[in-house]
Amino acid sequence: MLVVVKFGGTSVADVGRIKNVARKAAAKKDAGYDVVVISSAMAGITDQLIGYLKEISKNYSLREYDQLVSTGETANVPLITQALLELGYSAESFTGVQAGIKTNDTHSKARITAIDTERIKRALGEGKICVVAGFQGFSPASGNITTLGRGGSDTTAVALAAALKADLCEIYTDVDGVYTADPRVVRDARKLAVISHEEMLELASLGAKVLMPRCVEFGMNFNVDIMVLSSLEDKPGTLVTSKELNAGELRRKGIFTEEKMEKMVVRGVASDKNQAKITLRDLPDRPGIAAEIFTRLAGANVNVDMIIQNIAKDGRANISFTVPKTELNTALNTVNTFAADVPGVSAEADEDIAKVSIVGVGMLSHVGVASTMFQTLSNHGINILMISTSEIKISCVIDEKFTELAVRVLHDIFINGLGQR
Amino acid sequence: MLVVVKFGGTSVADVGRIKNVARKAAAKKDAGYDVVVISSAMAGITDQLIGYLKEISKNYSLREYDQLVSTGETANVPLITQALLELGYSAESFTGVQAGIKTNDTHSKARITAIDTERIKRALGEGKICVVAGFQGFSPASGNITTLGRGGSDTTAVALAAALKADLCEIYTDVDGVYTADPRVVRDARKLAVISHEEMLELASLGAKVLMPRCVEFGMNFNVDIMVLSSLEDKPGTLVTSKELNAGELRRKGIFTEEKMEKMVVRGVASDKNQAKITLRDLPDRPGIAAEIFTRLAGANVNVDMIIQNIAKDGRANISFTVPKTELNTALNTVNTFAADVPGVSAEADEDIAKVSIVGVGMLSHVGVASTMFQTLSNHGINILMISTSEIKISCVIDEKFTELAVRVLHDIFINGLGQR
Repeated sequence: MLVVVKFGGTSVADVGRIKNVARKAAAKKDAGYDVVVISSAMAGITDQLIGYLKEISKNYSLREYDQLVSTGETANVPLITQALLELGYSAESFTGVQAGIKTNDTHSKARITAIDTERIKRALGEGKICVVAGFQGFSPASGNITTLGRGGSDTTAVALAAALKADLCEIYTDVDGVYTADPRVVRDARKLAVISHEEMLELASLGAKVLMPRCVEFGMNFNVDIMVLSSLEDKPGTLVTSKELNAGELRRKGIFTEEKMEKMVVRGVASDKNQAKITLRDLPDRPGIAAEIFTRLAGANVNVDMIIQNIAKDGRANISFTVPKTELNTALNTVNTFAADVPGVSAEADEDIAKVSIVGVGMLSHVGVASTMFQTLSNHGINILMISTSEIKISCVIDEKFTELAVRVLHDIFINGLGQR
Repeated sequence: MLVVVKFGGTSVADVGRIKNVARKAAAKKDAGYDVVVISSAMAGITDQLIGYLKEISKNYSLREYDQLVSTGETANVPLITQALLELGYSAESFTGVQAGIKTNDTHSKARITAIDTERIKRALGEGKICVVAGFQGFSPASGNITTLGRGGSDTTAVALAAALKADLCEIYTDVDGVYTADPRVVRDARKLAVISHEEMLELASLGAKVLMPRCVEFGMNFNVDIMVLSSLEDKPGTLVTSKELNAGELRRKGIFTEEKMEKMVVRGVASDKNQAKITLRDLPDRPGIAAEIFTRLAGANVNVDMIIQNIAKDGRANISFTVPKTELNTALNTVNTFAADVPGVSAEADEDIAKVSIVGVGMLSHVGVASTMFQTLSNHGINILMISTSEIKISCVIDEKFTELAVRVLHDIFINGLGQR
């Protein structure tokens, strides 16, 4: 039995917490597991290092960025290891290079391409707890150190769990699980005992910050069960799994679910304010014009999310689409260049929007979910600007100022079952 | 033409100083050199990291210590590199692993065994300034990160200069050269323009803290010229070389010496308070007894420096020897164990001693140097407890409280020529 346990920056923010993390890892060893620990940098260190770099250059080299910021994680793993040694356990620290975490060459957001687990397996075989620096790897082609981007330590954990065929990957964080909505917005949000990878992926993509989408994707692709837990309190978390577990199997993983929760169709309500909307007006209604716009945007590395097209009268059309706020300037430059070539076309941006979404596997096969969502928003005077749906989610773009209200009323209807007759 | 330039912790203590260091390296490049920069960690960082480790364990793993403290240097080199990029120079940072610095497995004080310079040579060939993390290497056998011990970054610099066959190795530090005595003790101490490796090695071993003995030894063995310079002020430093340079060659290296300095027989006066004296009384005067004592001390890893033996009356002898203060407890335990086996023998320790030394190549061939030293100390009421001499130095152990006085009067006599008729 092998478990990978990952601790985030706030869980290892000082020596006292590092000792606590070591005790948690040791308890797993005592319970009979082989244990691999993944650690982030101490909270604040990464920002401090990036601050130095930005003081030196506004337009810094991503290779040097990776060489620099990876030291935060590298410095933490020997401290955790020493805390384990002090408790009387055999342990060894590993950098990304030493752990064999190979990536491509895309500095600051590299993707793991392979993991050479030989060295870790040998150490596990010797009974050692392996403490691995998260967030980092190396490019075998160049020998350069790489980092994995936001949430990279979670990805390290899930990828190593996959490569080592771990029985479970536990992510200890400063929240204690996955909730049906952001508890800061919805006071009676409930913690989910179990959620599928697919649902978690949607929730993560839609702005729930518990796990980053890439990490969940990895778990989905390699079928790694991920448990999200609090590093500060000892209580049950949320299991992200694609397996159909019965009550007994769940209980063995420490999960006690309420019958009621498991019958919920909608599993979470999420919101995302990091969106902006661009509208192109008076486009000539000829074939290929939409394709041309979105090809140009793709060429400029803009991630377009939702798109709607309205056929206006007199043969002219409007197209609206959303992009991340951070990419708004690039997107606007691109569409303005386009508009300059096409007489009569104008572009405008709206940053004051938000996306609210409901997520649940099999949701679309339940009659009336979509119409209930639209009706509920409408009942509260919230205008829907755009809609998109997938197998397991419905998203609506609304005026940003209604975000929290929308999340609360949707949570009341779908999770608490108020008004759902 | 290739120059290796090394900057210590105070020279890179903040972003402003890091930019300054980059400008110095860039000026070398402008002057037509290929440039390799070696950097220490920011001042204070290493101590902070060790502080964390000591909070976790009083008896920490040296492997984990190396994994931890090496991050200080690793984090600094991308910052210097970025500052060079910002100035418009091509540059690349290197960890010890990336720079090919191979060591043995002796964690926390590893010795460099070989340097694989291929990657650095390739980068230099591409016109890049190479910025290398000092103080660290790796064990090819284990893949572990190692560190080189105190003054390790200087050793990195001189070793890389040797491996790359550099024309010069410049060590930028918080003093501006090698002085005839510690300027804090002797107000009119003079900066030496040139000193031989051999003399520098003696001065370093005798407590002058400008360069560590190991680094000088490396320079001597591989005939690397080392220039010691101030990182804060732009003025001539001290050249450590074993070559006989004429005035023209010296001038090309930026050195202007006074005729007078070059005629000095004694080149430096050093003192060392980190010594303690142990005296064993009433030893039976039989063959092999001294050998037995010092074999036991060697077995306990005690570094014995000076030794004197007095034949007392009635066939009993006294032996006194000095050891570093840090090894006094170990040494006392060893001799007390010995004394317990030999009836009548007693041991006592004296920590209130110091060693003062004068250093100069060819000194012993000058008549009267030793007697002038002894007479001068005596004239000032300073009792000499022990004496040792070598080809290029004379050391006297004295009462610690006279240390500064002894250094000043010896400097007056030998360097300033006062009273030397």
